[in-house]
Amino acid sequence: MSELKGACVIGQSGGPTSVINSSVLGALEAALDNPSITRVFGMAHGIKGLLNDDLYDIDKEDRDELALLRYTPSSALGSCRYKLADPDVDDTDYKRILEIFKKYDIRYFFYNGGNDSMDTCNKVSKYMMKSGYECRVMGIPKTIDNDLFGTDHCPGFASAAKYIATSCMEIYQDARVYDTGMVCIVEIMGRHAGWLAGAAGLATAMGAGPDLVYLPETDFDMKKFLADVKRIYDEKGNCLVAVSEGIHYADGSFVSEAKTSATDGFGHAQLGGLASMLADTVKNELGCKVRGIELSLLQRCAAHCASKTDVDESYMSGKAAVENAVAGKTDYMPGFKCTRDENGYKCEIELLPLSEVANTEKKVPREWINEEGNGVTQEFVDYALPLINGENVGPKVSGLPRFANLKKIKAEA
Amino acid sequence: MSELKGACVIGQSGGPTSVINSSVLGALEAALDNPSITRVFGMAHGIKGLLNDDLYDIDKEDRDELALLRYTPSSALGSCRYKLADPDVDDTDYKRILEIFKKYDIRYFFYNGGNDSMDTCNKVSKYMMKSGYECRVMGIPKTIDNDLFGTDHCPGFASAAKYIATSCMEIYQDARVYDTGMVCIVEIMGRHAGWLAGAAGLATAMGAGPDLVYLPETDFDMKKFLADVKRIYDEKGNCLVAVSEGIHYADGSFVSEAKTSATDGFGHAQLGGLASMLADTVKNELGCKVRGIELSLLQRCAAHCASKTDVDESYMSGKAAVENAVAGKTDYMPGFKCTRDENGYKCEIELLPLSEVANTEKKVPREWINEEGNGVTQEFVDYALPLINGENVGPKVSGLPRFANLKKIKAEA
Repeated sequence: MSELKGACVIGQSGGPTSVINSSVLGALEAALDNPSITRVFGMAHGIKGLLNDDLYDIDKEDRDELALLRYTPSSALGSCRYKLADPDVDDTDYKRILEIFKKYDIRYFFYNGGNDSMDTCNKVSKYMMKSGYECRVMGIPKTIDNDLFGTDHCPGFASAAKYIATSCMEIYQDARVYDTGMVCIVEIMGRHAGWLAGAAGLATAMGAGPDLVYLPETDFDMKKFLADVKRIYDEKGNCLVAVSEGIHYADGSFVSEAKTSATDGFGHAQLGGLASMLADTVKNELGCKVRGIELSLLQRCAAHCASKTDVDESYMSGKAAVENAVAGKTDYMPGFKCTRDENGYKCEIELLPLSEVANTEKKVPREWINEEGNGVTQEFVDYALPLINGENVGPKVSGLPRFANLKKIKAEA
Repeated sequence: MSELKGACVIGQSGGPTSVINSSVLGALEAALDNPSITRVFGMAHGIKGLLNDDLYDIDKEDRDELALLRYTPSSALGSCRYKLADPDVDDTDYKRILEIFKKYDIRYFFYNGGNDSMDTCNKVSKYMMKSGYECRVMGIPKTIDNDLFGTDHCPGFASAAKYIATSCMEIYQDARVYDTGMVCIVEIMGRHAGWLAGAAGLATAMGAGPDLVYLPETDFDMKKFLADVKRIYDEKGNCLVAVSEGIHYADGSFVSEAKTSATDGFGHAQLGGLASMLADTVKNELGCKVRGIELSLLQRCAAHCASKTDVDESYMSGKAAVENAVAGKTDYMPGFKCTRDENGYKCEIELLPLSEVANTEKKVPREWINEEGNGVTQEFVDYALPLINGENVGPKVSGLPRFANLKKIKAEA
């Protein structure tokens, strides 16, 4: 493979995570240090920044400040929820992207996101090939939902899982402190895949977690749920429940569906308010004290509780994207291939073809959920526990985190 | 003062915190090591455990396990919300307490809690004096609300403040990630005093926090609130708001209790707390994307984000209670006297008479809130910032916290 000299551009898309900036840092540092890459650009708010010719000149950033991205949650370059049209139907955006690529001599395109972002990568790559413009495209995985196909797990999942498990352990201590008893219902993100709700089960495995965990991989039955809660409450005087926001009845309708008709940019129904709805139902049925807690945004941005394993792997995937692209690869996503055995946990990069990854959702295997459908099995715990290991301790100022403050200087051609 | 030999009993009361166990640890370790104290008991669920003769034999606990209380949130001995009657009206409980005191030869009574607990201490002490039963009584302060009178601040406040400020900084990164803009409203505990909501302003002081902070010390005006949010949103494209759960209109009625006309598709009243109610109102008024987040129980139990300063001071207050009681003091609460000057922050114990502390609420001074009533001043920041310093890093197992597991062996006389 001949050397391809040129600029690179990197963008972040979709919902942010605690570690998506670590992936970007891995890519940026590799790109800044690589002689084949002439200039390094960041997209302001993902693909939209590219379309608007709104790029940041990363070469003008201070390297020490950039390094703080390792401890900075959310997407430092900004994100968007923009889905490119099918180029056969409308190629306006693609023409524009090609124009920008030519303007800055961009030969490397890195896009950091989930399913939809891998689809974006795939479309951009195909269009450039068709247009005869040489450009190497790599997706960099990111999603707390852990639902990307082909990879052992996704950067971002483990830190969210660590936050969820830690928080559940703490709530467990709190929610049983009185002699009078309480039911506590914790609502966890995850529209279609129950990886994050399942992570609450890690707290249970440590002896201080939810008594009941409901994932969207099984159908939810309100009667059975109420009976489950009543049984535990009668037996223990307390009951801690974790539910995925995506739990649904057998007919497919979300339990929370009546709450809102709002949708996000991709047309997904926007969920929320499930915890208080279930709390209300339990209260009416059992007459006991009930509290609903929605972990909300914090599960995806609580960098203070990030997993060092996750941060290191996220960095590794960003770095691998750049290194492999420079080495001649295109149309791949650096995923993870892992082993968990008597020698411990090992994770290495495996390049996955974008076409295989895009738009396929990986769910929690049914056999990793208990038969009753109200908890996870040891297999799930064995899978997830090694991922949340280690603390990612960043610098503090006055006891509060010191986040990266990028200059974000607008790029000129 | 002559030596008083006898057993001691310690209990925890009211809402738990991340560090109330550190206070108890300070007291327990001092008591276990003190030759004047013959036995050490813990009340199961506070004063109710005493009334039910349900005490734990702390001498039978493993000292290394006890030491983990430093990292364990919530009230390890259990809590209750039980208010003793006025002994002049009904002295049943007091007679029972005296009976239990005699049964175990209890000569030291330590009670760890907020306003009501100091009142309990005061009443118990007076009754014992009247009965001619020699017993030394000390309150040990605890409340995330920071509303105890006479002390610079209260154990528990700083860790909640640190969690709130850290979380607000993280939410700030997350809630402005899209190009499309969003208003985010964070609901914070504090029914009558705004110390905790004010702590969100520490994030603002660090350059990454709420644009608007509303405390219950000023009257809330919905029209002005909506105008504030609109102004910021129009200017910045985003707006992050922190509100105390206790905000109220000029007539004293809580905003959270106001009946809204909002109903879901089936005519059910909208569920959820203040944050979602305000989010709904802003959405209807401004038509933008809005998210309500209730920090809920986590702000009082997130030990993984506790302030080391708070933990150390909490331990110190528990220890001081025991040492001063043994030295002959009774009817006091070890409060904090602090200095903040060019030499930094210093905190020392000051014994406060229980009768002065009980049932008086300390609120945020009006001059520490800006004139507009939508933020805190530098005075507030200078007061609170030193309290949240330092990380309280405890042992981990598989990346998750290792909490104390006490044996809780029932005491026998």
